[in-house]
Amino acid sequence: MADATSIRELPSLTGIRLRRNPLEENPFFHPSHGFYITPSDVILSQVVYDLSADSQPRYAYHRAGPRQEIMYEPSSVKAAIVTCGGLCPGMNTVIRELVVGLWELYGVRKICGIPAGYRGFYSMEAVELNPKLVHNWHKKGGTVLSTSRGGFDLLKIVDSIQLNGYNQVCFTLWFDLFFGNLICSLEIEFKKQILFRCVDPQMRHQVYIIGGDGTMRGAVKIFEEVSRRKLEVGITVIPKTVDNDVGIIDRSFGFQTAVEMAQEAISAAHVEAESAVNGIGLVKLMGRSTGHIALHATLSSRDVDCCLIPEMEFYLEGKGGLFEFLEQRLKDHGHAVLVVAEGAGQEMIPRSESQKQERDESGNLVFLDVGVWLKSALKEWWGRKHPGELFTVKYIDPTYMIRAVPANATDNLYCTLLAHSAIHGVMAGYTGFVSGPINGNYAYIPLEEVAQTKNEVNTSDHKWAWVRSVTNQPDFETNFKGQTP
Amino acid sequence: MADATSIRELPSLTGIRLRRNPLEENPFFHPSHGFYITPSDVILSQVVYDLSADSQPRYAYHRAGPRQEIMYEPSSVKAAIVTCGGLCPGMNTVIRELVVGLWELYGVRKICGIPAGYRGFYSMEAVELNPKLVHNWHKKGGTVLSTSRGGFDLLKIVDSIQLNGYNQVCFTLWFDLFFGNLICSLEIEFKKQILFRCVDPQMRHQVYIIGGDGTMRGAVKIFEEVSRRKLEVGITVIPKTVDNDVGIIDRSFGFQTAVEMAQEAISAAHVEAESAVNGIGLVKLMGRSTGHIALHATLSSRDVDCCLIPEMEFYLEGKGGLFEFLEQRLKDHGHAVLVVAEGAGQEMIPRSESQKQERDESGNLVFLDVGVWLKSALKEWWGRKHPGELFTVKYIDPTYMIRAVPANATDNLYCTLLAHSAIHGVMAGYTGFVSGPINGNYAYIPLEEVAQTKNEVNTSDHKWAWVRSVTNQPDFETNFKGQTP
Amino acid sequence: MADATSIRELPSLTGIRLRRNPLEENPFFHPSHGFYITPSDVILSQVVYDLSADSQPRYAYHRAGPRQEIMYEPSSVKAAIVTCGGLCPGMNTVIRELVVGLWELYGVRKICGIPAGYRGFYSMEAVELNPKLVHNWHKKGGTVLSTSRGGFDLLKIVDSIQLNGYNQVCFTLWFDLFFGNLICSLEIEFKKQILFRCVDPQMRHQVYIIGGDGTMRGAVKIFEEVSRRKLEVGITVIPKTVDNDVGIIDRSFGFQTAVEMAQEAISAAHVEAESAVNGIGLVKLMGRSTGHIALHATLSSRDVDCCLIPEMEFYLEGKGGLFEFLEQRLKDHGHAVLVVAEGAGQEMIPRSESQKQERDESGNLVFLDVGVWLKSALKEWWGRKHPGELFTVKYIDPTYMIRAVPANATDNLYCTLLAHSAIHGVMAGYTGFVSGPINGNYAYIPLEEVAQTKNEVNTSDHKWAWVRSVTNQPDFETNFKGQTP
Amino acid sequence: MADATSIRELPSLTGIRLRRNPLEENPFFHPSHGFYITPSDVILSQVVYDLSADSQPRYAYHRAGPRQEIMYEPSSVKAAIVTCGGLCPGMNTVIRELVVGLWELYGVRKICGIPAGYRGFYSMEAVELNPKLVHNWHKKGGTVLSTSRGGFDLLKIVDSIQLNGYNQVCFTLWFDLFFGNLICSLEIEFKKQILFRCVDPQMRHQVYIIGGDGTMRGAVKIFEEVSRRKLEVGITVIPKTVDNDVGIIDRSFGFQTAVEMAQEAISAAHVEAESAVNGIGLVKLMGRSTGHIALHATLSSRDVDCCLIPEMEFYLEGKGGLFEFLEQRLKDHGHAVLVVAEGAGQEMIPRSESQKQERDESGNLVFLDVGVWLKSALKEWWGRKHPGELFTVKYIDPTYMIRAVPANATDNLYCTLLAHSAIHGVMAGYTGFVSGPINGNYAYIPLEEVAQTKNEVNTSDHKWAWVRSVTNQPDFETNFKGQTP
Repeated sequence: MADATSIRELPSLTGIRLRRNPLEENPFFHPSHGFYITPSDVILSQVVYDLSADSQPRYAYHRAGPRQEIMYEPSSVKAAIVTCGGLCPGMNTVIRELVVGLWELYGVRKICGIPAGYRGFYSMEAVELNPKLVHNWHKKGGTVLSTSRGGFDLLKIVDSIQLNGYNQVCFTLWFDLFFGNLICSLEIEFKKQILFRCVDPQMRHQVYIIGGDGTMRGAVKIFEEVSRRKLEVGITVIPKTVDNDVGIIDRSFGFQTAVEMAQEAISAAHVEAESAVNGIGLVKLMGRSTGHIALHATLSSRDVDCCLIPEMEFYLEGKGGLFEFLEQRLKDHGHAVLVVAEGAGQEMIPRSESQKQERDESGNLVFLDVGVWLKSALKEWWGRKHPGELFTVKYIDPTYMIRAVPANATDNLYCTLLAHSAIHGVMAGYTGFVSGPINGNYAYIPLEEVAQTKNEVNTSDHKWAWVRSVTNQPDFETNFKGQTP
Repeated sequence: MADATSIRELPSLTGIRLRRNPLEENPFFHPSHGFYITPSDVILSQVVYDLSADSQPRYAYHRAGPRQEIMYEPSSVKAAIVTCGGLCPGMNTVIRELVVGLWELYGVRKICGIPAGYRGFYSMEAVELNPKLVHNWHKKGGTVLSTSRGGFDLLKIVDSIQLNGYNQVCFTLWFDLFFGNLICSLEIEFKKQILFRCVDPQMRHQVYIIGGDGTMRGAVKIFEEVSRRKLEVGITVIPKTVDNDVGIIDRSFGFQTAVEMAQEAISAAHVEAESAVNGIGLVKLMGRSTGHIALHATLSSRDVDCCLIPEMEFYLEGKGGLFEFLEQRLKDHGHAVLVVAEGAGQEMIPRSESQKQERDESGNLVFLDVGVWLKSALKEWWGRKHPGELFTVKYIDPTYMIRAVPANATDNLYCTLLAHSAIHGVMAGYTGFVSGPINGNYAYIPLEEVAQTKNEVNTSDHKWAWVRSVTNQPDFETNFKGQTP
Repeated sequence: MADATSIRELPSLTGIRLRRNPLEENPFFHPSHGFYITPSDVILSQVVYDLSADSQPRYAYHRAGPRQEIMYEPSSVKAAIVTCGGLCPGMNTVIRELVVGLWELYGVRKICGIPAGYRGFYSMEAVELNPKLVHNWHKKGGTVLSTSRGGFDLLKIVDSIQLNGYNQVCFTLWFDLFFGNLICSLEIEFKKQILFRCVDPQMRHQVYIIGGDGTMRGAVKIFEEVSRRKLEVGITVIPKTVDNDVGIIDRSFGFQTAVEMAQEAISAAHVEAESAVNGIGLVKLMGRSTGHIALHATLSSRDVDCCLIPEMEFYLEGKGGLFEFLEQRLKDHGHAVLVVAEGAGQEMIPRSESQKQERDESGNLVFLDVGVWLKSALKEWWGRKHPGELFTVKYIDPTYMIRAVPANATDNLYCTLLAHSAIHGVMAGYTGFVSGPINGNYAYIPLEEVAQTKNEVNTSDHKWAWVRSVTNQPDFETNFKGQTP
Repeated sequence: MADATSIRELPSLTGIRLRRNPLEENPFFHPSHGFYITPSDVILSQVVYDLSADSQPRYAYHRAGPRQEIMYEPSSVKAAIVTCGGLCPGMNTVIRELVVGLWELYGVRKICGIPAGYRGFYSMEAVELNPKLVHNWHKKGGTVLSTSRGGFDLLKIVDSIQLNGYNQVCFTLWFDLFFGNLICSLEIEFKKQILFRCVDPQMRHQVYIIGGDGTMRGAVKIFEEVSRRKLEVGITVIPKTVDNDVGIIDRSFGFQTAVEMAQEAISAAHVEAESAVNGIGLVKLMGRSTGHIALHATLSSRDVDCCLIPEMEFYLEGKGGLFEFLEQRLKDHGHAVLVVAEGAGQEMIPRSESQKQERDESGNLVFLDVGVWLKSALKEWWGRKHPGELFTVKYIDPTYMIRAVPANATDNLYCTLLAHSAIHGVMAGYTGFVSGPINGNYAYIPLEEVAQTKNEVNTSDHKWAWVRSVTNQPDFETNFKGQTP
């Protein structure tokens, strides 16, 4: 097993004297045999095998959990927690658990919340956090620390980390995959420097991060600068993406709450469609680069006639197109429900001259609203095809009613385990890593690897086949080829 | 008491032999003294008196409930139920209770659901309804009968009523108060003819109606034509307006469910606003001509900083304007939540050339989206006033997620009592009337009176004062006068 | 009108110089004509009339709302708020609104929460309340002030009021109608002394109260003692009874939330019953002396086959009994759902020797659990009648899951108006009164009157007839007479 | 890999000509490379390794999914679906998906629902199921097919299978681990005969099963008899245990919905406890042999002070006991919340003479109600320790309100994948197997293996340590040893 499997090593602080884990003294933990995790405890990345195929390279990740020796004297830790980017159910649970875990398990007493995302490092006062203060935070949606998007001053952030003496920083964040060109250059630098490996032995601190859209690139920059300055800071990232578009780990936190909440919107759309003559219910769900929420919500609801996602091209007119399909559905059932992920069909939406120029903060073309466009395209089509006949499109965009709720029980528990995994890892001296479940077991993954992956819906596997089977929606790809002369 | 109070008389069928109410034989009803309602049982329209003021004219309405004698032989009744206009929580409960009540209480066996609103009378097959079929309908949102808006062919409808022999029609509907000009002319004719009083003694049938926006004008036309043809049809209307904009009655069905559901949207807006730097949460709630939902949702939630309704003019710029208020709120609290009724500020939204031309099915200027406009006005203002500073507006339009849900327990019970009141009235021979609670007791009101009223928020009473006190929002009207040189 | 109607006068503080209402200066209120309420503004207690009957005596109550002149200098007010007895949705909203209203409307700054009910006056520290502290209380179930039942030391309470200088006390409470003998003696004294009328001109304070079961008798005693000591204390009571068993007012707060929550339990019972062979779902709902929750929950749900309430006797065996009815239902449908109010059938449940002796804190026989008894009676019956045949009773007692939730939107708004009415009344110098809606309008009612009434389900009116019609349950009373030889 | 890993082989029908999978022709599936699962596709049972330890034996299971060749001519399939035992969220979803999947994917047209559990095979008419009929079943709690417990006539069941020609039977069920002695003897026979391996080549049918508590022993008996008669019946079991006490698979369906619903009960208990003086909220959650629901609900809620489960002994009196702990909690916080799994403390509850004799249908001692016992033990303790002091225990048993709800989105999706896995397996000719996720991937597991396992909470692992850390509850086991002299 061992020889055929390569273990993904983690960057780590060095030069710090190891000390016994204070869990040893904790009356609630029994550090009996098997309780502590050692470097030889690993999680296999692959559990599905085709025994008839040639042997494939296999990977294993270090298992998350408490180590017998840690690298920090708890009383010397000063931890910083930041939340960046858009909202996601469970952010407050992650913050709460980081605070409670550091305090109760390791006896850390200096824990700071950085308000308002990255900029908060230099533009706002940090908030002292303790278990009493965060006691009920897991029952609130959003992030009590508040968050922000957009640009920031890197040097000021690292100045702040240095000045304030933060030696653990936890970010909850995710980079926005649409800010492509900027990311690319960052990743190249990133890979060139293999920065987490070359952490300087003189560094003597640690850092935690929590954040989201467009902000992981910030984490990377911060690491670089932290590294350049040879700071002794442990840095960890908890991926925050309600879209579930992060690779390697089983799923992202908040995702199941989002799927749950999406059911309400789909039900409403279904009722509106059923109550009308030739009624279409159209629901736009989150998912800029991936359609996981749309797919799961469709399979859970069963009221959906067609599910459109970014991973699958579709077209409106002609044989095998969306209009032909809807025409038939209205004829058969009198109504239809469409679910569209926000990233679907971006290339089909006509851009105005100004939209062709307008760029977002990262220099990319602005994102267009597929729901509004599809609604008007549907109306235009029907008016042209069936002038005078009744037709209704009810469009629902439940985005904020989905992402601003508190985490459900499943996600609350998940956030707890994520936060505790992160704490154990940082205290053990790991840095530049991400915590998350792999095949159901919590592991530590180099940030480098996570940043290079993307979890897309595989439109040629069974799950997507089943969506199509459930909805009976057209196979746009095959149909399209069929159209070609 | 009696002499000073004038009783609002109801149009009634005549020339039909009265027969004993079959409730007499029903084992579940004890027609003991006081059970049956007589014409001398009335409900006072006024309960609040200023004893120091001069005596005011007083009105009383006939109390709803079973009469000892009825005008139909149950086996000869053929009832039609129609739902028209937009959705409203509780429509299915009303339908269900009409069916179950006619069937169980009076032994009626021919009950038809007209699908798809008015047009369904002539363009679709009616559905035979019975208690078993409608058993679970009250747990579904929308209307199982389905509904529609827009034009219809009056003569075909009355032909259908005549041809199918419907002698009871129940409409659930309400006229859209923005379709002003058309309505006006209808109301005039309506008053001139006093049509419900001149019901011809030869008429031998009855009609039920259920419906909404823009459709009560249809009911009026149908009455006229039914009257002209001297049909013996009992017609009743159950006002269906989630906006609660109907006068005389205490409140409309579905309204309390809508207020309940609006809390979710306001909570989400509050979370989004709190989690951002200079965050505004903006929620648009239903209410084209009246702000009842916005007002009640604001008072129930307490997370709202400003509530804008059609009954109150507001302005954005300058001293005492909305922007000044928000500037201060953001400075004080870092975030703010706005609730805007869809009918607020219509006159302030700039119309494009095409919007100046575009008219809806009833010939009125199209209704503009105050939420979208306000969102962009807020962004423009901030960008101008605080260029480069963080600012976020999260806009939520929960309309369909509010109106497409099943009725809550309160509304379910209310719909039951509405439907039963309507049944007893029609069976007793009344026609052209509306059922509804007046000061907590169910009464019959001439359709003529209801059609002339509108229930607006009184911005000079205590409730609105308390909204302003809760939100501390500016007194736009006074301020505006203060601005005048 | 005026001469035929007698107005229910309120006890009032005297000897205090009147001063202008500070609302006059409040930018959010426009004390224009009609805004202030005068003593000539009244609410009629009766709106349903039988014009053919002889003229009946008529009553009117003073309308609630702000008075132009008040009896307290706001800076000299020291208000106490107490919650007593069992939980009820909305208690925290009432507390919150009392605090916010006193503070924002009248400028009162000394507002104390008495923790733990009556005993808290002398056994615990009062909590200083202010708008910031209570900001989110309306979103929490229960009472943040906490509550208790059982005995208390009257003299210590009044000592505490005197010592702490409370001059306004608001109780939220209701007396338990089963503590009969004690109550009776209290009521007699109460009536003999007509104590609220003989308020001494030397009294210079005010008191607020909030509470429930078994505690209004406490309020009465406190009034007596306050009166004996000639304290200048304004006292008001907000009836807190989720059972809706208080008379005169339209309904009690929390009741509609309770009916809403009861739907979940009935649905679960229905599912359990339907999923079994000969399945009975049995739900016990609150209501010791009245069956309002059971009745409303039954009418809202429609899944109930039989609804048993304290106002109606029932019997199990023999012709027309419950078992016969259930036998038929199981034969016809295979399952049945029973709703039983907790006070139903008390006299039928056999008492053990110890239960015949055991008395509660007030000296009454202990209350027995009708749900547990009925469940075992059903099993015993079936085993005897159909030995070996499948049969299942699933018993649900959702009491705490119903009463411990936050108020819904409807009740939140209601609690707000109750609290504000109370504040305006006390500030105007009224004492010994209750606030509440009468025919939809808020009024002040002498505590004496409210304490003498009880709102019972009228089993000979239409609403109960309709319950029976909906459920088809037997008419136990008639049947029982039929059985008599 | 292959050589070190032993594959768990499945019993299979034989002697049936293989035919092409009709999915080949299904427009919604692309049987491209990698779509079909072959016998060499396996799932590893172990993903966590200690590389430093000696090599352990490794197991792999056959991966679930469609096979290129199947063993049934779809038109000849007659499938039976049975649900047995107690309710669990998601049963209707499983039924629905079995029906829709067999119909849409494989073209099967004869699908029968057996009503009322096992007995339904011979005592009731089977129900013909089709996609239209089951369309909305996944939105209903319970099982539309209905279920039952208790004895049955094995021979009649197999007679019925034979007589009706069912050749696929799907059971949803689980055996009750407390019916120990009966189960033991069954398991022994089971192991001796290795019955699934010796399926006779002459057998020509298949069977599906769905069920629960105390019913898997039924499935085993049925297999035996089916085998003895050499019937050609494919049999599959979908484990139905809301307690999550089934081994090998990741979790059981309905479990996450149950944890979600348990939050409501814990919240209510928390509110009741907080609103009282020395208030205890006590919640009993499902879990006869395992405490998974209690554990997960505790970790998700955070309002729990102590969580008692069957896997951990506890004691009340003395040093380190529950009473001492609660005494301290009440002193510190004034209230406490207890969660107790129904199987906890069974051996501590005193049995009456009759309870010592009374045995359930399977011959075991009756199960006692730990919640009722604990409530009275708490009251007795306080009365003895603190006579006269206020103390309240509010006991909530939300069992039926938790298990009778529809599945949430997560469980709905899970049930879908379970059902589809089962269908593919049976159609491919496997029998005597269970479908379920192993390390996140769906596999087929021999029924024999599943029946021998039990998924218990490991009280020496990190998750339980974290529960103790969250609650700070005593370590009863260590404390107890500490007490021994």
